[in-house]
Amino acid sequence: MPLERFRVAELTWPEYDELIRDTPVIVPIGATEQHGHHLPLGSDAFHVVAVAEAAAQISNALVAPVLSYGYKSVPRSGGGEMFPGTISLDASTLIGTITNVMNQLMTDGARRIVMVSGHYENSMMLHEGIDLSLRGRPADGVKILNLLWVDLIPEELIIDIYPGQYPGVALEHAAFLETSIMLYLRPELVHPERAGTEIASLPPYDVHPQVPGFVPATGSLTRSTGATAEIGKRLIDEGSARLAEVLANAW
Amino acid sequence: MPLERFRVAELTWPEYDELIRDTPVIVPIGATEQHGHHLPLGSDAFHVVAVAEAAAQISNALVAPVLSYGYKSVPRSGGGEMFPGTISLDASTLIGTITNVMNQLMTDGARRIVMVSGHYENSMMLHEGIDLSLRGRPADGVKILNLLWVDLIPEELIIDIYPGQYPGVALEHAAFLETSIMLYLRPELVHPERAGTEIASLPPYDVHPQVPGFVPATGSLTRSTGATAEIGKRLIDEGSARLAEVLANAW
Amino acid sequence: MPLERFRVAELTWPEYDELIRDTPVIVPIGATEQHGHHLPLGSDAFHVVAVAEAAAQISNALVAPVLSYGYKSVPRSGGGEMFPGTISLDASTLIGTITNVMNQLMTDGARRIVMVSGHYENSMMLHEGIDLSLRGRPADGVKILNLLWVDLIPEELIIDIYPGQYPGVALEHAAFLETSIMLYLRPELVHPERAGTEIASLPPYDVHPQVPGFVPATGSLTRSTGATAEIGKRLIDEGSARLAEVLANAW
Amino acid sequence: MPLERFRVAELTWPEYDELIRDTPVIVPIGATEQHGHHLPLGSDAFHVVAVAEAAAQISNALVAPVLSYGYKSVPRSGGGEMFPGTISLDASTLIGTITNVMNQLMTDGARRIVMVSGHYENSMMLHEGIDLSLRGRPADGVKILNLLWVDLIPEELIIDIYPGQYPGVALEHAAFLETSIMLYLRPELVHPERAGTEIASLPPYDVHPQVPGFVPATGSLTRSTGATAEIGKRLIDEGSARLAEVLANAW
Amino acid sequence: MPLERFRVAELTWPEYDELIRDTPVIVPIGATEQHGHHLPLGSDAFHVVAVAEAAAQISNALVAPVLSYGYKSVPRSGGGEMFPGTISLDASTLIGTITNVMNQLMTDGARRIVMVSGHYENSMMLHEGIDLSLRGRPADGVKILNLLWVDLIPEELIIDIYPGQYPGVALEHAAFLETSIMLYLRPELVHPERAGTEIASLPPYDVHPQVPGFVPATGSLTRSTGATAEIGKRLIDEGSARLAEVLANAW
Amino acid sequence: MPLERFRVAELTWPEYDELIRDTPVIVPIGATEQHGHHLPLGSDAFHVVAVAEAAAQISNALVAPVLSYGYKSVPRSGGGEMFPGTISLDASTLIGTITNVMNQLMTDGARRIVMVSGHYENSMMLHEGIDLSLRGRPADGVKILNLLWVDLIPEELIIDIYPGQYPGVALEHAAFLETSIMLYLRPELVHPERAGTEIASLPPYDVHPQVPGFVPATGSLTRSTGATAEIGKRLIDEGSARLAEVLANAW
Repeated sequence: MPLERFRVAELTWPEYDELIRDTPVIVPIGATEQHGHHLPLGSDAFHVVAVAEAAAQISNALVAPVLSYGYKSVPRSGGGEMFPGTISLDASTLIGTITNVMNQLMTDGARRIVMVSGHYENSMMLHEGIDLSLRGRPADGVKILNLLWVDLIPEELIIDIYPGQYPGVALEHAAFLETSIMLYLRPELVHPERAGTEIASLPPYDVHPQVPGFVPATGSLTRSTGATAEIGKRLIDEGSARLAEVLANAW
Repeated sequence: MPLERFRVAELTWPEYDELIRDTPVIVPIGATEQHGHHLPLGSDAFHVVAVAEAAAQISNALVAPVLSYGYKSVPRSGGGEMFPGTISLDASTLIGTITNVMNQLMTDGARRIVMVSGHYENSMMLHEGIDLSLRGRPADGVKILNLLWVDLIPEELIIDIYPGQYPGVALEHAAFLETSIMLYLRPELVHPERAGTEIASLPPYDVHPQVPGFVPATGSLTRSTGATAEIGKRLIDEGSARLAEVLANAW
Repeated sequence: MPLERFRVAELTWPEYDELIRDTPVIVPIGATEQHGHHLPLGSDAFHVVAVAEAAAQISNALVAPVLSYGYKSVPRSGGGEMFPGTISLDASTLIGTITNVMNQLMTDGARRIVMVSGHYENSMMLHEGIDLSLRGRPADGVKILNLLWVDLIPEELIIDIYPGQYPGVALEHAAFLETSIMLYLRPELVHPERAGTEIASLPPYDVHPQVPGFVPATGSLTRSTGATAEIGKRLIDEGSARLAEVLANAW
Repeated sequence: MPLERFRVAELTWPEYDELIRDTPVIVPIGATEQHGHHLPLGSDAFHVVAVAEAAAQISNALVAPVLSYGYKSVPRSGGGEMFPGTISLDASTLIGTITNVMNQLMTDGARRIVMVSGHYENSMMLHEGIDLSLRGRPADGVKILNLLWVDLIPEELIIDIYPGQYPGVALEHAAFLETSIMLYLRPELVHPERAGTEIASLPPYDVHPQVPGFVPATGSLTRSTGATAEIGKRLIDEGSARLAEVLANAW
Repeated sequence: MPLERFRVAELTWPEYDELIRDTPVIVPIGATEQHGHHLPLGSDAFHVVAVAEAAAQISNALVAPVLSYGYKSVPRSGGGEMFPGTISLDASTLIGTITNVMNQLMTDGARRIVMVSGHYENSMMLHEGIDLSLRGRPADGVKILNLLWVDLIPEELIIDIYPGQYPGVALEHAAFLETSIMLYLRPELVHPERAGTEIASLPPYDVHPQVPGFVPATGSLTRSTGATAEIGKRLIDEGSARLAEVLANAW
Repeated sequence: MPLERFRVAELTWPEYDELIRDTPVIVPIGATEQHGHHLPLGSDAFHVVAVAEAAAQISNALVAPVLSYGYKSVPRSGGGEMFPGTISLDASTLIGTITNVMNQLMTDGARRIVMVSGHYENSMMLHEGIDLSLRGRPADGVKILNLLWVDLIPEELIIDIYPGQYPGVALEHAAFLETSIMLYLRPELVHPERAGTEIASLPPYDVHPQVPGFVPATGSLTRSTGATAEIGKRLIDEGSARLAEVLANAW
């Protein structure tokens, strides 16, 4: 029987208490980060919530409130911190947040938790936050998964969708995939005519301090040519379906 | 001229960049906390966002993404951490989050920032986070305000609204005021028939570890008898109007 | 039978060891904070120690060494950090101190601990420090109370004492109550003729960075007209008696 | 003119002082981590030092003492922390170490610093450590690079070397590449006959707590069939040459 | 002209403000630590305050409120943490406290600060706390001294006083010197008849976890035979005079 | 039967796993610190590794990878942080490193661990790191020793070796003892003709901020006249033999 409500924020505490021990709970983690001249700063939070909520409805899972601020943008994957509007957390802050939220969920009885991130740079901080939350805690059957939702989509599928040569996920920041997704989710916030057309040419290392000119001036690491809402729908549907499979089978 | 969009998450970075130096920005801080048998866990985030967004529209201000997790619930003001569904942050985590977000806003050029909280227990941690964000930063005209939105409403007005003897804001957790507000904002999430009817009788001190029985078993510290959506609307309207005045005059 | 010595600092370790399991222990927390032109910087530590020691003698409790530095002064309750002589601790430092002291007391066998604060701004940091000290510690019957000693005195009694209209505890910094108390405890350190006469008019929010002019220039938030040593004695006696009741009954 | 000595540890302080402003300095970061049944725990430190020292000799750069402990092993890239002998640092510890070392190098006048890592999991922690070391420091021409030395080798070259289908760098832990490298650098420490032959089949997510069976029992994520010292030499030579190019051109 | 009052806690903020720029300020640091069967837990705080106040009166210096809790007792110098009544701070807590207090004193204009410790184990933590307080602060003529007051007394003088063979300062915990001092300062708290008579025989290393039996069961590391109030007075007088010389000449 | 290999870094994880429960493990801690005009920056790491490895071979113990960066140089014992090439860690970083390494060794089953330091300033930070690693860990027979290897050599032996009047260990930084040791271990890195000839005259306190001129300009605190490789060998042999005795008998 489907849950009447799946958002933790919308439940009373007795409703939550009745569900939390036997229901998987998804914690979505986004970012507030530049997404080129044509996509909104909240893109990562918008798409991770969309995937998490769709998967939760398929799987009868709960969704905790999203974390809208993520770890710092790295130029080679997100353009970097020098772009205005990229509002990020220090490693220690994000790690602490994850540790605190995991601890409380486990104390409340949650046993199947999935951290779903929409922002690549979060991954290792989520890893550390989860690791610290388990330190000294007796093994009691809890399992915590940590994933980046786009990693659930097989690369072949993306290559298949991609108009032309797929440049690899590294350059796909504020580009074809995310533009398609946002055209599907929040078309009124997308300005395709302002999209960058430059393809970043990046060395195999990071440079600090981050300086303008390392990535294209728009902040998009490659083009979004050919992006459509239909493709965006396909990506969200595929991501949600794969996440639902994980929720069904990973325990 | 009103802003076309006031939510930071919905702006592209050039749009944000054009506004941030001369536009006040509100950072709403909620909590995920038990609100009795009849109100949802996300109540504090719901009402603080409602007030922040209404005030922003009156004042042409920006609203940053809400922080949905707050500092720990104290029994005498929020029932306490032992209730399932109260998912809180350690002091160091919330302080770090505030420091990081303030720092980035100021680096981006923001000069008029208002932290608006919907959860009493956040206040001192917001104070510390702001204080640390200003340490070592040269005075450059920035002003950061820190407030609990219900504090903007004069006590006389609340006494006037209140059906019977007003027990003071301390007991008004998951009670008359918040029930009215949630009936106005999200009536489908309110279950008045489950509301607690007990009035907490609390000593003038906290007791650790927190134990059941210190506050009424529902988690409501007093009754919500007489709560209506109309009263909720009046409180939200009043709070928003007062916040808009602060946004207009406090600099 | 009364304790021959009640100050922890004056006991040998075997004497302490013999008492600590069955004797309540009070940990007084003060501050080093401006108290207007007429009261000494150590006022909060002086009065909290006086109350703690008087209550300990009534109740056969122990008193640990006072913490003379507290959390940062907030303008609306203490004038603010920009006054010279206000020497305060960061949140993390005060929290750590409380956690360490609580942990050692519990390791030594203490089961009834009362944190008594003489400085409003300490309260939430004491809460966090106690909370962290209990994390992962098995429930073993220990109880830690956290209180601000003036909160033990019923507001009616203060209204009754007050010469004229009581402005509320918020403005009572370095004003009528504290002046009376210091006239009783350390009259040679009080300079009534220098006392401020301005009544602060404060908005319902904090402003950062703290600037001169937000509160009256003396640092007193309201007047101390009518303060006498007799009233000070009554407040200390009342606070001590109430604290002694807590020590007798709260476990 | 080549440097007589390039290891910071072997210089007197006046020798170091004379060089540090105008000489690039490499900081190698390894790990102490399981490398299957056939490679030593110090493999990452051995190969990163070899590459750093070879590049330094080509480029007249300095090499700081290696950090032999790295960030925690993640199962999907390194097998995980549950293997005995994997001795890792918390994120905060590694971040702090990097921040401290960067700060001192910059204070001493270093302007061209290259963090060279031999362990994938270090990367984001090095990023954070560098970022924090630059916070509040005036822009003064310093540049800090952060790289994983194997990322300098083009994937085509690896595919070309690889005997059979290249499974991707993700599975190349304690496998073909590292076995070849260690056969070249420290053949007496390699036991090819004990090498695992299983190919890990890993889901696109991490699972906590880490459990045996998630990766092959040896700890090698794939086979090392065909590994030779000659291939190892070619990888080290290629890596060193590429790093020397970076040292020559990246500023 | 002597200061009318030299205790910071007894000054109003304008009095403090008038003095702080041109007056040396002493910050005494004690400990709450076992001192054998015959001396009180607060011994280190008692004697460091006595020396600080006597020196301040000779030198017209200020004395800040004492820190009564210090760093952990090390068995080879203080008996160890396993003795009841030894209530100590973690390194991070004591370091943070020192950093906070130093920062505020310097912000208030203090330029000549002397940390005077009465507990050996504090020294390196005071060093770190001072070092961190100066990080990033422009050189502005401030000087902070860090000393253990007994180090001011030449070893020859102690050897001269000592009845028999001086065992070295390492064993002088809760023994001849401290017993003499406490007989002078607080004779009513000294119980010579309970004093330990064992001489500790300690290896040149620490052992963790600390266990009973490593040091003599009383907690005194050697004998106090021959201790007198006269010798205590001589030590306090000598320490104060030497500290006064430092206050006069060290800037 | 002697171990074939004693360096942890050279073992495979199964080899390590087979040994770790029943074999003592030495963790050497050095520093990167100025050692005058004539000794290399890595001196402390070089000699502590030499002693640790020699002792391990005598005692069939393991040696973990050295920590090459230590706690900050204090002027009175090491010249101070203002010398170029002294690259040190903050207290929190070194403490965290020790805690992490100890925790992992104990989790792997190690029960006899010896922290061997070659740098005086490390000692209290190692103490804290070990203490924190044991917090909350059940007593299970583990023992961790903490020592400075030169403390193992009786002072009489040093006085006997010393050419002239022994100035005490405090001044022996980059002087007679260390010069002898480095002439034995790494003669090609020693430049006796550049050695300082000044004898430091130091007050019994530290001064912050550290300034040139407090110690002799070379960084050597006293002379190294008479240093020879033979004496160095004797010191290393003596230190190793004494450490081997500790490894045999201290459990």
